[in-house]
Amino acid sequence: MQLTEELYPQAVARRRDLHRFPETAWTEFRTASRCAAELAAAGWSVQVGPAVCAPEARMGVPPERELDAAYQFALENGGDPSWMEQMRGGYTGVVATLSGVEPGPTVVLRFDMDALEVNEEPDPEVHRPARLGFVSQRPGVMHACGHDAHTSIGVAVGQLLGRLRTRLRGTVRIVLQPGEEGTRGAASMVAAGVLDGANYFLCPHVGAQSRVSGEVIPGITSFLATTKLDVWFRGREAHAGLGPETGRNALIGAAQAALGLHAIPRHSEGNSRVNVGVLRAGTGRNVIAAEAYMKLELRGEKSVITDYLEEQARNVIAGAAAMWGLEYQIERVGGAPSAGSDPSLMERVAQWARALPWVKKIGTPVSAEASDDATAMMRRVQEQGGQAAYVIIGTELPSGHHTPRFDIDEECMKTGIALFALATLDLTGSRKN
Amino acid sequence: MQLTEELYPQAVARRRDLHRFPETAWTEFRTASRCAAELAAAGWSVQVGPAVCAPEARMGVPPERELDAAYQFALENGGDPSWMEQMRGGYTGVVATLSGVEPGPTVVLRFDMDALEVNEEPDPEVHRPARLGFVSQRPGVMHACGHDAHTSIGVAVGQLLGRLRTRLRGTVRIVLQPGEEGTRGAASMVAAGVLDGANYFLCPHVGAQSRVSGEVIPGITSFLATTKLDVWFRGREAHAGLGPETGRNALIGAAQAALGLHAIPRHSEGNSRVNVGVLRAGTGRNVIAAEAYMKLELRGEKSVITDYLEEQARNVIAGAAAMWGLEYQIERVGGAPSAGSDPSLMERVAQWARALPWVKKIGTPVSAEASDDATAMMRRVQEQGGQAAYVIIGTELPSGHHTPRFDIDEECMKTGIALFALATLDLTGSRKN
Amino acid sequence: MQLTEELYPQAVARRRDLHRFPETAWTEFRTASRCAAELAAAGWSVQVGPAVCAPEARMGVPPERELDAAYQFALENGGDPSWMEQMRGGYTGVVATLSGVEPGPTVVLRFDMDALEVNEEPDPEVHRPARLGFVSQRPGVMHACGHDAHTSIGVAVGQLLGRLRTRLRGTVRIVLQPGEEGTRGAASMVAAGVLDGANYFLCPHVGAQSRVSGEVIPGITSFLATTKLDVWFRGREAHAGLGPETGRNALIGAAQAALGLHAIPRHSEGNSRVNVGVLRAGTGRNVIAAEAYMKLELRGEKSVITDYLEEQARNVIAGAAAMWGLEYQIERVGGAPSAGSDPSLMERVAQWARALPWVKKIGTPVSAEASDDATAMMRRVQEQGGQAAYVIIGTELPSGHHTPRFDIDEECMKTGIALFALATLDLTGSRKN
Amino acid sequence: MQLTEELYPQAVARRRDLHRFPETAWTEFRTASRCAAELAAAGWSVQVGPAVCAPEARMGVPPERELDAAYQFALENGGDPSWMEQMRGGYTGVVATLSGVEPGPTVVLRFDMDALEVNEEPDPEVHRPARLGFVSQRPGVMHACGHDAHTSIGVAVGQLLGRLRTRLRGTVRIVLQPGEEGTRGAASMVAAGVLDGANYFLCPHVGAQSRVSGEVIPGITSFLATTKLDVWFRGREAHAGLGPETGRNALIGAAQAALGLHAIPRHSEGNSRVNVGVLRAGTGRNVIAAEAYMKLELRGEKSVITDYLEEQARNVIAGAAAMWGLEYQIERVGGAPSAGSDPSLMERVAQWARALPWVKKIGTPVSAEASDDATAMMRRVQEQGGQAAYVIIGTELPSGHHTPRFDIDEECMKTGIALFALATLDLTGSRKN
Repeated sequence: MQLTEELYPQAVARRRDLHRFPETAWTEFRTASRCAAELAAAGWSVQVGPAVCAPEARMGVPPERELDAAYQFALENGGDPSWMEQMRGGYTGVVATLSGVEPGPTVVLRFDMDALEVNEEPDPEVHRPARLGFVSQRPGVMHACGHDAHTSIGVAVGQLLGRLRTRLRGTVRIVLQPGEEGTRGAASMVAAGVLDGANYFLCPHVGAQSRVSGEVIPGITSFLATTKLDVWFRGREAHAGLGPETGRNALIGAAQAALGLHAIPRHSEGNSRVNVGVLRAGTGRNVIAAEAYMKLELRGEKSVITDYLEEQARNVIAGAAAMWGLEYQIERVGGAPSAGSDPSLMERVAQWARALPWVKKIGTPVSAEASDDATAMMRRVQEQGGQAAYVIIGTELPSGHHTPRFDIDEECMKTGIALFALATLDLTGSRKN
Repeated sequence: MQLTEELYPQAVARRRDLHRFPETAWTEFRTASRCAAELAAAGWSVQVGPAVCAPEARMGVPPERELDAAYQFALENGGDPSWMEQMRGGYTGVVATLSGVEPGPTVVLRFDMDALEVNEEPDPEVHRPARLGFVSQRPGVMHACGHDAHTSIGVAVGQLLGRLRTRLRGTVRIVLQPGEEGTRGAASMVAAGVLDGANYFLCPHVGAQSRVSGEVIPGITSFLATTKLDVWFRGREAHAGLGPETGRNALIGAAQAALGLHAIPRHSEGNSRVNVGVLRAGTGRNVIAAEAYMKLELRGEKSVITDYLEEQARNVIAGAAAMWGLEYQIERVGGAPSAGSDPSLMERVAQWARALPWVKKIGTPVSAEASDDATAMMRRVQEQGGQAAYVIIGTELPSGHHTPRFDIDEECMKTGIALFALATLDLTGSRKN
Repeated sequence: MQLTEELYPQAVARRRDLHRFPETAWTEFRTASRCAAELAAAGWSVQVGPAVCAPEARMGVPPERELDAAYQFALENGGDPSWMEQMRGGYTGVVATLSGVEPGPTVVLRFDMDALEVNEEPDPEVHRPARLGFVSQRPGVMHACGHDAHTSIGVAVGQLLGRLRTRLRGTVRIVLQPGEEGTRGAASMVAAGVLDGANYFLCPHVGAQSRVSGEVIPGITSFLATTKLDVWFRGREAHAGLGPETGRNALIGAAQAALGLHAIPRHSEGNSRVNVGVLRAGTGRNVIAAEAYMKLELRGEKSVITDYLEEQARNVIAGAAAMWGLEYQIERVGGAPSAGSDPSLMERVAQWARALPWVKKIGTPVSAEASDDATAMMRRVQEQGGQAAYVIIGTELPSGHHTPRFDIDEECMKTGIALFALATLDLTGSRKN
Repeated sequence: MQLTEELYPQAVARRRDLHRFPETAWTEFRTASRCAAELAAAGWSVQVGPAVCAPEARMGVPPERELDAAYQFALENGGDPSWMEQMRGGYTGVVATLSGVEPGPTVVLRFDMDALEVNEEPDPEVHRPARLGFVSQRPGVMHACGHDAHTSIGVAVGQLLGRLRTRLRGTVRIVLQPGEEGTRGAASMVAAGVLDGANYFLCPHVGAQSRVSGEVIPGITSFLATTKLDVWFRGREAHAGLGPETGRNALIGAAQAALGLHAIPRHSEGNSRVNVGVLRAGTGRNVIAAEAYMKLELRGEKSVITDYLEEQARNVIAGAAAMWGLEYQIERVGGAPSAGSDPSLMERVAQWARALPWVKKIGTPVSAEASDDATAMMRRVQEQGGQAAYVIIGTELPSGHHTPRFDIDEECMKTGIALFALATLDLTGSRKN
């Protein structure tokens, strides 16, 4: 508790620094390199690069040009060059390991780092970060989901546990994950073995299901599984007046696919969702459209449902392309399975939270009609016989997640630091003092 | 002319007899067998059966059960059993050949025999065939397009030429074609070689482009090419409440195909048509439809256009099936190319017509926004260097073609008999007397 | 128990008689009239006709011609003319009331009477009803869902309670409902006030969620709400070659509606279903289709979801009609809300069942991914503060519900009779002896 | 002829100057103002502004911001400020009138001024304008259709006739039209009365149907009528996971509209075209799309066909919006009727062309499977009893119209100048010398 108080001001400063320099999925060069350096300085053994993000399992990686530009930006704005070097190409995951003085269970703590494509509110009158001078320095990019707070909590927990190393049993891994938005990053860290051998898994989210400062919800009971697909159709251009029969109309193919995708039957085992959120086709009014592009997502109460939806969706897309003589390409740019927190671990989270004097309320675990790819990690741990919990740290919000005036009550970070440190010590069976 | 007058009353009686017993495509057992017998009696060499209707080129043949029932009906209602025997299985085409006394050109005259699925008007007050007692004896089937008159003209021409045989040069073939409706029969007679070696081709149609008794239009300048397809989709049934995801929805696949078919692009080389005229899918409200069936037709100003439409249609259907995991089958149940009458032959037709005292008007050749598979025969003749004309014999009509009160001014048959006999004698270079 | 044994053979005979003469929704003239007579004979006060089936709330009533033919059939096959007279026009509901000797609660017992359009298996080798001579005498109609057993149980319960009338307290109503298939009949009995004042509601179903003879499941916890719609589109006919632009294409409109209906978004409050099960459009290949017809159904975990689906569906249909210049008509031909059994009443059902020596197993209440319009009655009772339970009487089935070889283990009827009689006596607080 | 030779070098220089500063529809500030000044200097009475471009009849006018930027660009690059002032807001049409010394017929000569959104080839090796230093100075905008040559010819003809004013009879109007591309400008000049009282109408096009230098085709016999529509759909945004049922999906509505538009039936009176060339919908993968936008065009052999297509298209769009609860807006951003050149005037054009020594070939008039809104002017003239001809001035082309390497053989401008001057003198009955 006392250590939390000591580390808290620095955690706030770190969060505000990250807030000023938000970085989207797979471009978290500045964030990851600086935090890697801090964790190393706190005595952790730190790994970055392809070793912790399996290349073939990364989804939705931006084109090289964008990666390079972001890398350059990070270099010029305080990124740590020695750590960044190994992150080239968008390998921005960080895994820090601390081994205790005695053997014991392995605990993994996961914190996500990426920001969103949102324009932050610049008006100091209505937006605290603008008033206090830590508004985003990158137009069009913003930490509007609290991942800056998550990351800062993670580093602070690392510093705290570093100081208590002599009491520590077992092994602790702090995982800083890139690309949670669009559920793009977790799978590659799982594929790299980052969760292997874990007995316990914990991760926090600020706000979300609780907008009450001082509340802790000890776990989310279920997330929707999700799959994100990008689809390209390629036909053949033709003048719509002079020779329409020589074209291959990608716009019509995409329209037919969009209708078909939304018409995929419901599944009897539970809820599902289909959404084609974006459709772009054609270049000119008098030209048969040769290209079309769609962004879509599928969700389901269980992974069996998203698997079903994906199989159907691939049929629909392939068939629509065949109808109109089109070539097509489908890229899986994101995805997460369904998963839920373990009741017995949620119970323990509730107990640790009750031990914190400033926590005023323990909320009831709830299900989420949304997705977070922490589920890929939770599943991996549970499949190995371990336990997982996705913990909500309540905070008042002036404006909802993913909006330009999003901000948090930074006091919630104190809860996060103390709760995760306490949990780690207890789960590993470390000495109390 | 005198012979025409002699043969005319019998021709009217024959037409009324055929009218009483209408037979649809490939079931013209009674019609074909009786006319074959009459032509043989008139001295013609008559062929029927697969030799004049190539089996693999027949389109839209009814199921065996229907063929058998129609055969039985014909047997019981005056069909000629000796000729019918060879027609089993729906081989109802007739080719009668008469060789002249000297060598000369080959002339083919074609007459179509089939009736339609139309309910004839039974009220004697408003419908002459009912009043005069020759209304259809088969509910739901009717000669509502004048093919009874065509066939009767054809036999009368055969009788007339038979009497003049000693003057005849060259070779004459009278072709009685099954299945003009739905453009199903001509291709199989072409494939059987019935048109091989023909120098001239003529066929009549009563009414149609001329509703003026006493008018002759010496030729149709162009017909729309056409292709008729039947399509079956087969999916998998499922209870719509308990397990919709286990079904394969043929109804949705057919709906998507129907939309796609109508959306096939226009062709820059000329007019086209697409119509899905019939769609039937599903068995019960709460069952995912496992079966769907469509009847469609494609038309175009040129055969290149119908070829294009058919290729596109097959893509659309295959793709729609793939979208929904369906099996499908496409059957070509009819089809005819584009073709037009030869100007120089039309000119001669006009001259012959002018020679008939009761012909009052020679109409201007016109194009038809419709199809007749006589075009398959015309094309074949023209490809061999021969000439063809599709002749309209005008007649007043109390009601349009294909309607329940259709009837003709039977006087027009006199024009048909005299004109086709005269044409044949002239084209073959036969002696005038 | 002893009375049950006495009445059981007659109940079996009655069930087999009903099985031989199955009647579909709103045509249960024979069934209803004979049972009305039996209940009257057992001392019940019986009402039939519009008084117990509110005319405007009946859904999916067949055309008059069919009603008349069915009425005639019933007359000729043992229907009771005196009771049938009031049922003319398809008013086939029956309500029988028995008042106790002392005041007490009102109990309603509901039994459904209608059969299905299924062809019963005629082979005695494989189908017991054929072997024992009670196979359906009406081709294409069959009791393939056990409603014959339900109805027979209902009458037997009436006879049993009639004999115990002197002990009875409160009021009992036996409701024989027409048209459960397609969820067409319950709403009109609710609208007629048949459930008004009910404190308890019970209804049985044989088989379904339990295929174990000797098992009782004391209640279904939830049914899917459902809405059944018939849709007609009316456009304008045109020749597809000569004037396609003069048509109004109902086939295309229906195809677009079918796609749109299946694409209605999922609802976040629970599961839903959409199915267009039947689509019929057009008359001829070369005619722009002037008519189309669709049968569809909507289902949802809650009534708010089916309300949403119906609103969307009406928009989709109206819009699709407007796209193609069509007139349309939507008829609500069936519907039922969601509802579930009350836990405390289920608990009591379990106790009564345990009291029957031949009941070997009490199953766990389950939810049904299907619909039954008993829910309309359950809701009405629950809204008045009463309790309801939908009870499953287990039986082995040689073949599933709605299939041609469906049959039951008739012993299950004994359970039904005893259980419903016992429940009624207990719920009304009647004297035990 | 001699005057043509004199004016030709300046015409080439003018064409190259215009080529360097291409301006798209309704932003031809520099082009129009400079040419207006030149014509005024040549003695013509010049009108610009709303008086010659009826405000409400302009189609596809860019947003004010773009108009302002283009205006500014013109000011800074040699536009004539005194003439530009009246053109503010995109009123860039110019009408110059010259009255003869004696009364006589009225002749209107029309030249179009606008450029295209094409990136001109910058490589001097392969592109003559780059080699000779007159390549476009505006990235993304290019005279790739020869309108620079048309406009320059028009001014040269004005100068030539100005010098011959003392011989001139009747009245001549030179019309410099904005916005031919997208068929946006002619209708507003017609609506302003610019064609009223015209007895003869002539306009040139370089290249197009003739790629032979030295050829003149005296007229296009028919153009496709066309209608250009922009469509917006507006629904309601919703989170695709948390509340899809609260959205109104504009993407689906647009997809259904696109399919429906392509499925509009063919017209029996002639060829037609439908193309949705551009579709843009939605903002994010996990958001129900609230906005969609389509660009489409309709074409037909006759105006009655485009009228039919437009009526159908409006139904399809309105219905699709209704299906999905969307608001919509349709803007007519371009359009031109069908029209053809008058045979007798084409004959005279051929005679004038034969009088030019460097013209080597008179081509045969042809129909165009394309559109040009000169037809709106031709129609207006023909409706008043006048005659019109759309004249093709042949030129070799290194690369087709609307491509980055388009260029012309500038010698063809000499033909244009001489031919239009000669025609004017002859049509007005002016003295030869």
